[in-house]
Amino acid sequence: MRNTRSGNVPIEEAIRRLLGAVEFHPETETIPVAEARGRVTAEPVLARSSTPPFSAAAMDGIALRSETVVTATPSRPVRLKEGRDFTFINTGEPMPGFADSVVMIEKVTVPEEGWVEVREAVPPFKHVRQPGEDVAEGEVVLPARHRIRPVDLGALLAAGVEELPVLRRPRVAIIPTGSEMVSPGIPLKRGQLREFNGTAFAGFLEEWGADPERRNVVPDRKEAIYRAVLDAAAACDMVVVNAGSSAGSRDYTPEVLDELGTVLLHGVAARPGHPVVLAVVKGVPVLGLPGYPVSAYLSLNWFARPLIRHWFGEGEERPRQVEARLTREVRTKTGSEDFIRMRVSCVNGEYVAAPLPRGAGVTLSMVRADAWLRVPADSHGYRSGDRVRLEIARPLESIRRTLSLTGCDDPLLDRLGAIVPLFWKGGSVSREFTGDRAGLSMLYRGDCHAVAVHGEGWQEEWQREGIRLARVRLAHREMGWVTVSHMDGTEPWGPDTRFIRRPPESETERKLEARLKGSLRFSPGERVEPSHWKAAASISEGTADLTVGPRSAARAFGLGFMPLWTEPLDLILPVRFLESGGGRALLEALRSGEFRGEAERLGGYDTSESGEVTVL
Amino acid sequence: MRNTRSGNVPIEEAIRRLLGAVEFHPETETIPVAEARGRVTAEPVLARSSTPPFSAAAMDGIALRSETVVTATPSRPVRLKEGRDFTFINTGEPMPGFADSVVMIEKVTVPEEGWVEVREAVPPFKHVRQPGEDVAEGEVVLPARHRIRPVDLGALLAAGVEELPVLRRPRVAIIPTGSEMVSPGIPLKRGQLREFNGTAFAGFLEEWGADPERRNVVPDRKEAIYRAVLDAAAACDMVVVNAGSSAGSRDYTPEVLDELGTVLLHGVAARPGHPVVLAVVKGVPVLGLPGYPVSAYLSLNWFARPLIRHWFGEGEERPRQVEARLTREVRTKTGSEDFIRMRVSCVNGEYVAAPLPRGAGVTLSMVRADAWLRVPADSHGYRSGDRVRLEIARPLESIRRTLSLTGCDDPLLDRLGAIVPLFWKGGSVSREFTGDRAGLSMLYRGDCHAVAVHGEGWQEEWQREGIRLARVRLAHREMGWVTVSHMDGTEPWGPDTRFIRRPPESETERKLEARLKGSLRFSPGERVEPSHWKAAASISEGTADLTVGPRSAARAFGLGFMPLWTEPLDLILPVRFLESGGGRALLEALRSGEFRGEAERLGGYDTSESGEVTVL
Repeated sequence: MRNTRSGNVPIEEAIRRLLGAVEFHPETETIPVAEARGRVTAEPVLARSSTPPFSAAAMDGIALRSETVVTATPSRPVRLKEGRDFTFINTGEPMPGFADSVVMIEKVTVPEEGWVEVREAVPPFKHVRQPGEDVAEGEVVLPARHRIRPVDLGALLAAGVEELPVLRRPRVAIIPTGSEMVSPGIPLKRGQLREFNGTAFAGFLEEWGADPERRNVVPDRKEAIYRAVLDAAAACDMVVVNAGSSAGSRDYTPEVLDELGTVLLHGVAARPGHPVVLAVVKGVPVLGLPGYPVSAYLSLNWFARPLIRHWFGEGEERPRQVEARLTREVRTKTGSEDFIRMRVSCVNGEYVAAPLPRGAGVTLSMVRADAWLRVPADSHGYRSGDRVRLEIARPLESIRRTLSLTGCDDPLLDRLGAIVPLFWKGGSVSREFTGDRAGLSMLYRGDCHAVAVHGEGWQEEWQREGIRLARVRLAHREMGWVTVSHMDGTEPWGPDTRFIRRPPESETERKLEARLKGSLRFSPGERVEPSHWKAAASISEGTADLTVGPRSAARAFGLGFMPLWTEPLDLILPVRFLESGGGRALLEALRSGEFRGEAERLGGYDTSESGEVTVL
Repeated sequence: MRNTRSGNVPIEEAIRRLLGAVEFHPETETIPVAEARGRVTAEPVLARSSTPPFSAAAMDGIALRSETVVTATPSRPVRLKEGRDFTFINTGEPMPGFADSVVMIEKVTVPEEGWVEVREAVPPFKHVRQPGEDVAEGEVVLPARHRIRPVDLGALLAAGVEELPVLRRPRVAIIPTGSEMVSPGIPLKRGQLREFNGTAFAGFLEEWGADPERRNVVPDRKEAIYRAVLDAAAACDMVVVNAGSSAGSRDYTPEVLDELGTVLLHGVAARPGHPVVLAVVKGVPVLGLPGYPVSAYLSLNWFARPLIRHWFGEGEERPRQVEARLTREVRTKTGSEDFIRMRVSCVNGEYVAAPLPRGAGVTLSMVRADAWLRVPADSHGYRSGDRVRLEIARPLESIRRTLSLTGCDDPLLDRLGAIVPLFWKGGSVSREFTGDRAGLSMLYRGDCHAVAVHGEGWQEEWQREGIRLARVRLAHREMGWVTVSHMDGTEPWGPDTRFIRRPPESETERKLEARLKGSLRFSPGERVEPSHWKAAASISEGTADLTVGPRSAARAFGLGFMPLWTEPLDLILPVRFLESGGGRALLEALRSGEFRGEAERLGGYDTSESGEVTVL
């Protein structure tokens, strides 16, 4: 049966329906204070004893009756005898029965052993902590439904509480489905795929305070899914099924949930993440979530997180926002809310943002996302230059320490970005392939910090009024034909060669055409791949035969390489950026042994000039 | 020997000196991805394999060679034979060798078994995911020094990484000192104190990513401390000694550290938290921190947190700030930076803040602090009404859901605050004893949400132009003499009675005077305690004999009680507040079985009118 019922419920409405349909009655468990961090109090926690438990000195000094020094002045000190009139006392020690006040040790003199002189009167209760001053027996230490922080641990023990009742964590079953899916740790056969959403889900759920239970992968068979959901609903407080929530021929989740319980909705008005099915089975909420990682993590966040907060009686949580200028347009279709992953950086004190690749399967774009742009269902998107509000996915401190790099591609830039944090605490590099010329335009507009360029192309663009630029040498790189087999020196292509082009009008294509003088013709259907590395990966997997790229990419995949030319690979950036923390870190990284090591491991680079700066 | 060298180094300078004096070389350990959440990458993590590992269908549909449907149009569909021209394919399945494109299942019709019709041409590579499209072998998945989030776990597994090198967590030894200190779990004898900073420290250190090691309590003997620090420095990466960092007769830490290694500084220019000693012993940083909880947690945060971030190569972290209006003045002495704990709430859309009790020992004020006000060393503080920037200690969402309550004191208010979160997700109650009249003035100024009042005092203040107020009944309470022993009906005081007063000019004192007509005289040295509960605790511990208060306080401590009068206990608040989420929750709480249960457990309350609203 093909399940085609699929609605389009806005997310907020879907969350409301879900929370309205389940009622949790979490049990209480009693645990020692030392294990209570992050747990949520089940009821008000009252002090079991008082702190201080007795009246105690608040200072090092002498304990006395205040009336004995009522006449003391600097000129007429009062002389007191140890044991009879006073005792020495340290901070925290119990006050002797006869005394009601403390004089600080700094304020007394010792004329002879066993005697002191006091030069000013003190009122009663001076420097004395009363019993229960900090917390008195029976006082409320923590209210109900309070998530316990480290500071609370101290207060609990101070209040004589050694163990306390907390809400049990909700057990959340994670059921991965898919006949081709294999759990981590088991070697993959051809055609099989690594099941990894389950591990990420478990991480998210733990972070939100739940107790995840990762179950075995269930094949795409209706009875198997039926059985797995039924078992999980009996044993757990929530169930997540991933995937099979769509309307494909193997998507049994909606059907199974309909038979086992009540389906609340199927399909939310969001892209990505649309094919969600929410149900209640024997009182237990069951989330059927889509399989593509981006959709999966988004929808887990939409629905599992509020459920867990609902369990603990915690309020709604709003993600932190930041306003940013778009450096490129964002186009969307109406009808669904769009969640766009964004790169964000802070250039010249202004937050600028650009969309990341939008495919639902591009896991790495989730890793690289600094923020989310939510485009309402009735909007067609935004124009470049528009100011938009973003929900941030990384702390603003990290975003402010992100070096935004545009321009050309090279594997060495990838590695450079990966080692910059070694030289810049909390720093990172975010890259976007734009080609040299577009990158330079972005630099002039304040859309990025630096542009990677190669060769001498667009050199006429390197100078502009009002902005002093510098060129920083990365390395020289060898470019050439990257082919499936090793070549004998003749032309590497034939009539059936599947060629992967550089983006049209890129500097490399310009160079290639000039060199080949028309002997290689591109057809319109030719694949274009901006990443040299991914192009080489395709050749290595046999889905293409030829591309032009750096030696490093050919070497990494054991491919043939026929050298064409050597060219400098540089960064163009404002001189004043070199004086910033990020700029200094960049130079330090380029001149480091770590960078040379990465270049050597990749191969095909000359780093003898790496880190050299030329002011343009 | 009395150690008196003590400087006054500003905190930022102290952190700089500390970080400048230690060089960490954290080792690397290899762990499975499933355990990597929260850990920090030791080096760049590269993809071990490509995802997808083969070219795969991105949609459910049919796989074909795009050239076979080049002529297809809606009016002239192309008919294809299964097995020869196409195969059915599901999302994620490998593309068959002959095919280069996928037509979505929705776009094909099946005229008869084994055949399909396609009505439009498709370009090559349509709905086909290329090998490595998500991540290609050798690409950087995570940079060095990256703290791993749940989303990264998925990407790592997708990239074929099953285990990865992370930095070892720093081992931090916690050495509690103090001959009178007893570890949690061991019953206290008189004169002994519960050692609780160690447990809170461990919680903080874990939260910051370290591996705390709580050591046994060390008595205040120089040799014992010497030995403990030496052992810990040999086994751990950092050492925290608590306390003994001051200049008292039993404060051996500075002396011991001076003998064992290099003391970087002794005394920071901060209140509280001044008596800090920082040292390096055999290359290991040793923090000698003060014993009072507030000083202890503040100074741990100043020094241990940056050390741990330094270990992991993470950047500086800035606490989130909020601007608020002060509802009372904050006076400070110059010479040191003051860290003032603040209550913050949001009244009529504006953040308002008031200082909490400033004693360094008041652990509960740390629990209750919403934010910190840092007053610079050269400032005398701020006036009421000044706008100040605060560093928040709780999420703003929680602060916005905090009901700010002023006015009189009663134990029932404490309990009410503790159960409100049961009726208001993420909500809480913050209280300040101001007395009825001052509370009403604050309400009119927008400094609080509600005022607790008792009896009919200040009734003339209940009506003001421009603001419609309501009175919400909490309960009726019995007030009377609270004494150390049970009484026979005669006057409960004699010439030596140690009396605890209500604050002067409070409503209760007014009533008491009217009733006693001068037969009880207060002396100027009399103790004043705004909390009925704490007053009763003092009597129970024998440091006072008599106070006036509610029956509940007497009952809790098994004290004598001689009834004086019964009076209503009410909340006065703006009518429109009752319509807010907090207002509705408040009424729900007052009318609940939980509230009546708390009142019954306390005793001395009549809750028959609880939750009744009268518009004034």
